[in-house]
Amino acid sequence: MSTKKYKILVVNDDGITAPGIKALIEVMKELGEVTVVAPDSPQSGMGHAITIGKPLRMDKVSLYEGVEMYKCSGTPVDCVKLAVTKIFKGKKPDICVSGINHGLNNSINVLYSGTMSAAVEGAIESIPSIGFSLDDYTWDANFEHCKKYIKEICLQVLKNGLQPGVLLNVNFPAGQQLKGIKICRQANAKWAEDFDERQDPYKRSYYWLTGVFQSHDHGEDSDVWALNNGFVSVVPVQFDMTAHHAISTLNTWDFNV
Amino acid sequence: MSTKKYKILVVNDDGITAPGIKALIEVMKELGEVTVVAPDSPQSGMGHAITIGKPLRMDKVSLYEGVEMYKCSGTPVDCVKLAVTKIFKGKKPDICVSGINHGLNNSINVLYSGTMSAAVEGAIESIPSIGFSLDDYTWDANFEHCKKYIKEICLQVLKNGLQPGVLLNVNFPAGQQLKGIKICRQANAKWAEDFDERQDPYKRSYYWLTGVFQSHDHGEDSDVWALNNGFVSVVPVQFDMTAHHAISTLNTWDFNV
Repeated sequence: MSTKKYKILVVNDDGITAPGIKALIEVMKELGEVTVVAPDSPQSGMGHAITIGKPLRMDKVSLYEGVEMYKCSGTPVDCVKLAVTKIFKGKKPDICVSGINHGLNNSINVLYSGTMSAAVEGAIESIPSIGFSLDDYTWDANFEHCKKYIKEICLQVLKNGLQPGVLLNVNFPAGQQLKGIKICRQANAKWAEDFDERQDPYKRSYYWLTGVFQSHDHGEDSDVWALNNGFVSVVPVQFDMTAHHAISTLNTWDFNV
Repeated sequence: MSTKKYKILVVNDDGITAPGIKALIEVMKELGEVTVVAPDSPQSGMGHAITIGKPLRMDKVSLYEGVEMYKCSGTPVDCVKLAVTKIFKGKKPDICVSGINHGLNNSINVLYSGTMSAAVEGAIESIPSIGFSLDDYTWDANFEHCKKYIKEICLQVLKNGLQPGVLLNVNFPAGQQLKGIKICRQANAKWAEDFDERQDPYKRSYYWLTGVFQSHDHGEDSDVWALNNGFVSVVPVQFDMTAHHAISTLNTWDFNV
């Protein structure tokens, strides 16, 4: 059976030259026709930012054989919007994959991550979408052992589809030994920020954001638990941010206006 | 009864000189001690972006009497993180309010909006948080008629509290006549993007993001419906993006790895 039929959009947030997107492209070439639109510079932590105050550049580049590639001056979400509007022109791809991110995007990081926000934007465009991230923040991270999992997860998504408004957040733990796949929920965790305050040569202060990731979640159904125990975590994500469970409480409030 | 007791953090995404934040400060001064940390330049559409590749500046400014104010070189979310860490220093404010945004942040805009992302970040920090936005995109928008609603909603939040992990997204419709408050869910709507492609003087293409907001939602419980019918929309928002309803389906998939 030939699987060489799918139209695939590949994006990321580490930039078009990152080894992580190269690994993802290598997997996706086995599944179909690959188009890449990725930032021309690192866009980690850009969340769901879009560029509205200045124009965007998007230019064709040739990095890997047999792949249509564009570098874009905007954010990861801009890349998806440009790909859908100017490259696919309404004929949507069969799947949108983002990553592989150099670093975890589990738990609350789904909000900060450009990788995941690109996948969210794919889902808003009704494209089955998946973000992939590895617990290795180095540029020369080894993604080889992730590839068979990525291929299998993509094949399942292409076969089964995803419910409307749902995408997947896939994270790989550190180390080469993977115990399998766990379907999870987003753990209750946050960053305990700190800012490294320094002085410039003119005696004026500036601040570097730093912080420690802290999980307050003891459940064994969370992505933090799965990753800490050697599993690949798969969290279904939605972009309806309504706290539906809070509506009835708010309706009991007596607004005096 | 004196209400002059609350510690209040005010942020926005339109920048510290915007008339919208001035109006919000005027309301909040009636409720307590106001600290403002706001971007030094417009940050609309920045979503949940944080600044990690470069350092941040934060400097004290004096714009309005009796208010502690800081301008920050970062994103709206950076402003909240800096406020909590470097100004409140662990003694969290009683409430975090963001806005008033010059333009709507209803429905899917909760993801793109710097105003709402700042409020989300406040909620992640366990601070009762509310974002306010008005359906008027002009710089000289009139916020006067919103003030009594903002004060009442803040008083209710301060009195009743919000459930853990929940914040409020409050939008005001166009026009001065408000019919009251509706508790809503986020409408199923999206932007139908287009890009205005132009050529620079060197014959190279560049793109301006444009688009039309399209609602596919016919329910009378959505924020789009409320705003179209003259109501102030109040949507409870959560930052757990897990699509919990999709977990059981995914668990039926037979991953062949």
